[in-house]
Amino acid sequence: MNGAAYNGEEVPQGQPLSGLMQDWPLTLDRILRRMETATASATLSVATDSGTARYSFRETALRARQLGAALHGYGIGQGERVASIGFNTRQHLELFLGVPANGTVLHTVNPRLSEDHLEYVIGHGGSRLVFVDALVAGQVIPLLRRSPRVEQIIQIETDEYEEFLGSARSNPGASVPLNERQAAALCYTSGTTGLPKGVLYSHRSNFLHALGICLADGMGVGSRDTILPIVPLFHANAWGLPHAAGLTGANIVLPGRDTSGDALARLIHAEKVTFTAGVPTVLSSLLEAANRNPGVLDSLETAVTGGAPMTKSLFDGFARHGVTVLQGWGMTETSPNVSLSRPPRETDGTAQAIPYLLSAGRLNAMVDARLVDADGKELPWDGSSAGEIQLSSPHAASGYFRNPAAGDELMDGPWLRTGDLATIDSCGYVRLKDRMKDLIKSGGEWIPTAELEEVIRSSPRVVDVAVVARPDERWGERPVAFVVAQAGSSIDVAELRGCLKSRVPGWWIPDTFEVIDSLPLTSVGKVDKKALRNQVSAV
Amino acid sequence: MNGAAYNGEEVPQGQPLSGLMQDWPLTLDRILRRMETATASATLSVATDSGTARYSFRETALRARQLGAALHGYGIGQGERVASIGFNTRQHLELFLGVPANGTVLHTVNPRLSEDHLEYVIGHGGSRLVFVDALVAGQVIPLLRRSPRVEQIIQIETDEYEEFLGSARSNPGASVPLNERQAAALCYTSGTTGLPKGVLYSHRSNFLHALGICLADGMGVGSRDTILPIVPLFHANAWGLPHAAGLTGANIVLPGRDTSGDALARLIHAEKVTFTAGVPTVLSSLLEAANRNPGVLDSLETAVTGGAPMTKSLFDGFARHGVTVLQGWGMTETSPNVSLSRPPRETDGTAQAIPYLLSAGRLNAMVDARLVDADGKELPWDGSSAGEIQLSSPHAASGYFRNPAAGDELMDGPWLRTGDLATIDSCGYVRLKDRMKDLIKSGGEWIPTAELEEVIRSSPRVVDVAVVARPDERWGERPVAFVVAQAGSSIDVAELRGCLKSRVPGWWIPDTFEVIDSLPLTSVGKVDKKALRNQVSAV
Repeated sequence: MNGAAYNGEEVPQGQPLSGLMQDWPLTLDRILRRMETATASATLSVATDSGTARYSFRETALRARQLGAALHGYGIGQGERVASIGFNTRQHLELFLGVPANGTVLHTVNPRLSEDHLEYVIGHGGSRLVFVDALVAGQVIPLLRRSPRVEQIIQIETDEYEEFLGSARSNPGASVPLNERQAAALCYTSGTTGLPKGVLYSHRSNFLHALGICLADGMGVGSRDTILPIVPLFHANAWGLPHAAGLTGANIVLPGRDTSGDALARLIHAEKVTFTAGVPTVLSSLLEAANRNPGVLDSLETAVTGGAPMTKSLFDGFARHGVTVLQGWGMTETSPNVSLSRPPRETDGTAQAIPYLLSAGRLNAMVDARLVDADGKELPWDGSSAGEIQLSSPHAASGYFRNPAAGDELMDGPWLRTGDLATIDSCGYVRLKDRMKDLIKSGGEWIPTAELEEVIRSSPRVVDVAVVARPDERWGERPVAFVVAQAGSSIDVAELRGCLKSRVPGWWIPDTFEVIDSLPLTSVGKVDKKALRNQVSAV
Repeated sequence: MNGAAYNGEEVPQGQPLSGLMQDWPLTLDRILRRMETATASATLSVATDSGTARYSFRETALRARQLGAALHGYGIGQGERVASIGFNTRQHLELFLGVPANGTVLHTVNPRLSEDHLEYVIGHGGSRLVFVDALVAGQVIPLLRRSPRVEQIIQIETDEYEEFLGSARSNPGASVPLNERQAAALCYTSGTTGLPKGVLYSHRSNFLHALGICLADGMGVGSRDTILPIVPLFHANAWGLPHAAGLTGANIVLPGRDTSGDALARLIHAEKVTFTAGVPTVLSSLLEAANRNPGVLDSLETAVTGGAPMTKSLFDGFARHGVTVLQGWGMTETSPNVSLSRPPRETDGTAQAIPYLLSAGRLNAMVDARLVDADGKELPWDGSSAGEIQLSSPHAASGYFRNPAAGDELMDGPWLRTGDLATIDSCGYVRLKDRMKDLIKSGGEWIPTAELEEVIRSSPRVVDVAVVARPDERWGERPVAFVVAQAGSSIDVAELRGCLKSRVPGWWIPDTFEVIDSLPLTSVGKVDKKALRNQVSAV
């Protein structure tokens, strides 16, 4: 299809000349093809209630193709959504790989969503067919039955699922023609600021994001790795790790439903895992388990964390086991990974590496950014000018599924508004200061709550803290801190105030400190600031 | 541009749904944008006659943009070709990055081409403007003057070049709208089998190839590296290394015109180079220099070689300096890199790694392949079935510039015929047996000359060898060996025959052994088998 005109003798003038390279769409069925050829002998290991089961990539790809053929047989056409509600199991991985390869869109649903949100996303996504993990079937199925569009519910890890797979009438090897811009997956944001919003990934965006994960400067995933994705498949494509593994032949280890620290540590040891990824709270439990079982992490080289800030103590704790923790930054809207905290070589082995390790990391090769101040003016990348960081990337969203109003709010022209206040230094390292919406404006000045919380968190006897704004007639807004004390100790608010005086500007110090047992969390484990704000406004 | 229809409330049925991701063309101006932002502080060091000069990526990108603006000012439009004939200098890199970013096509020409071929490619490429290195200006300019289309010749590293740069009338920051399928660069094959043929790379193919170079499983180039591309810019995009460096912020070190082993070793030491790449003969000279200067390669971690088979002794020699040599495989038609000899982790530190290190390597993530026998039947990837290896990749050619007949010969449907006889094992490692055209058919059976040459080369007192076919009435073809003896020794043909008897089938043993001083080479340093064939046919 690439141009007969210039392939021949005549070359047109004054217009772009098309290259004479192969038309090779970046589509996810190529990952299955890889798993049938160059990465066929890599293994998928899955922890189940009855021990660890092992499969080759070749078998996994075959079953994923079979699933696509079964969907076709059922009458699911191109562009239709199929939902999955489950954990990191063998069957969920088959759905993850097989549904998009058939031209269908996999809508991954977080099983821990509130009933309201679950009903909303199922209705909004519009799947006729829903695959459900047995562990949550009891709660979820009655809700699904209420959704008018849902026709069939299939429990995975059951005969129902195997029968469905066996129903494939077309040839599982027959491939559906795909274009790289077509939708592959649908994932809703957690909805801390309203109803969940659907991000509709394309084949191209998922493919390019997976390549990004495999870059030496990215997570560096490759054929020499054995990967344990603790991060769930419903959490922004499990950060692209299953795609990256399929492409490169990194072995995959799936934890199934038990993601306790001890279970993960045992699995890492038994399967010689070299690379893992999960949110900081999960990595903390893993670290505690490893501290009780020296040597259990011997094979592990790298753990990537994201979704919430990493602490220095988490980094140091893993370093004592010979594991490097890298922090990634991203959003559901960006596939997710946009940066990674790999320090520059010249800081190796020095204390200068620490601020880089604790930063949001360096912008990936396929991610462009700009910083914008309140007036829309672009700010320099000098490491000190702070503005909203906006992103441009082939794996960043340009809108939301069936929600043009939210899409308009998301975009500032071609740039995605992250809602994060950040600096970028001259080497592309991003430092997040705060969520724009968490900033407190007091007497015309900004108080970055994330920075303030970090200082409070490092005070004696404080385990955790969240600061939110209370409306104030005189100042506009004033900070209120919710503080959690160490088990068995109490917090002396006067002493805490004294301690803060020397470390932050006086007007940052919260007017009120509420000591509470634990911070409220959202369905994805982030601090629910909306709930805290409602609480202080109601006072 | 991504669909209003499904962004809104209505979702069309039974047709692919477009993803809602940003439209972010994979174009080479993005590499300049990276060099102006996230990789701005990386350095370009260039060896010149008067010492090593250093520039930031930011300055380099600025000058590349200025060059684009100057081309625009001169009246060079989108799709036009501009030629460069030079070595790895600062200005050549500016052309390499700046010309495509302006929508123009850079035609890189090997300064060592024969007069005939040089005249042919300049005429066929059709550039009005040619940039020439001062070192070859004397020979090249008179030839260029004979080309009716060439309007202006600019010597680089001179005031002429700086004046041209200074002539930019448009804003160097203003970007030309590019689409990713448009042509970015033109490179002619060396023409060992006829007239040179032009490969017309697109922005997309060069961008994706550069990403491939940065994969952990690929060359693994990243921000922590300092790269010395010994491989010339005119040799298939310098294997994508300048693009990879611009994207990631790896420092670049350019050798200029002196690529002697000693000069390279000094440069590696002075600039703390971590990664280099060049053909085996160049790496051999580097190794000899390093053997004379212990410690000179201390910073170097990886050397990638390609273009001709690597020997075990080259690998071992570098290993003694703590350097890993990886062998890459590719062609001008494939951008070039399609595989790399990184052994599987389980062979680390064992002798089992050796066959992998000496193989053509494992197929890259964006390269699909098939093996085809003489009847066009597909063969399995079992490590023993040998057939022509054919490739499919977004960075593989689909034809040749203004040469549809050669393009038709190149392609077998969507697959690129490599002309190489190979096996592929179940992990995607390719082992090249021979060039299809170098195979000798004797008595109805194939003799793989590459394999036969390897055995002869390992015989006592043999330094090099080339085997070609002589037409034979009885057998169809019979092998003739051209043998080069070690300096100061002579070859006993009877003894050599005896030696071969135990190691290869009797009918492989050449009828004639011609002892010669050196093998004839083509302009790119490969053994010129065509010349040898002419010699034996004439006998």
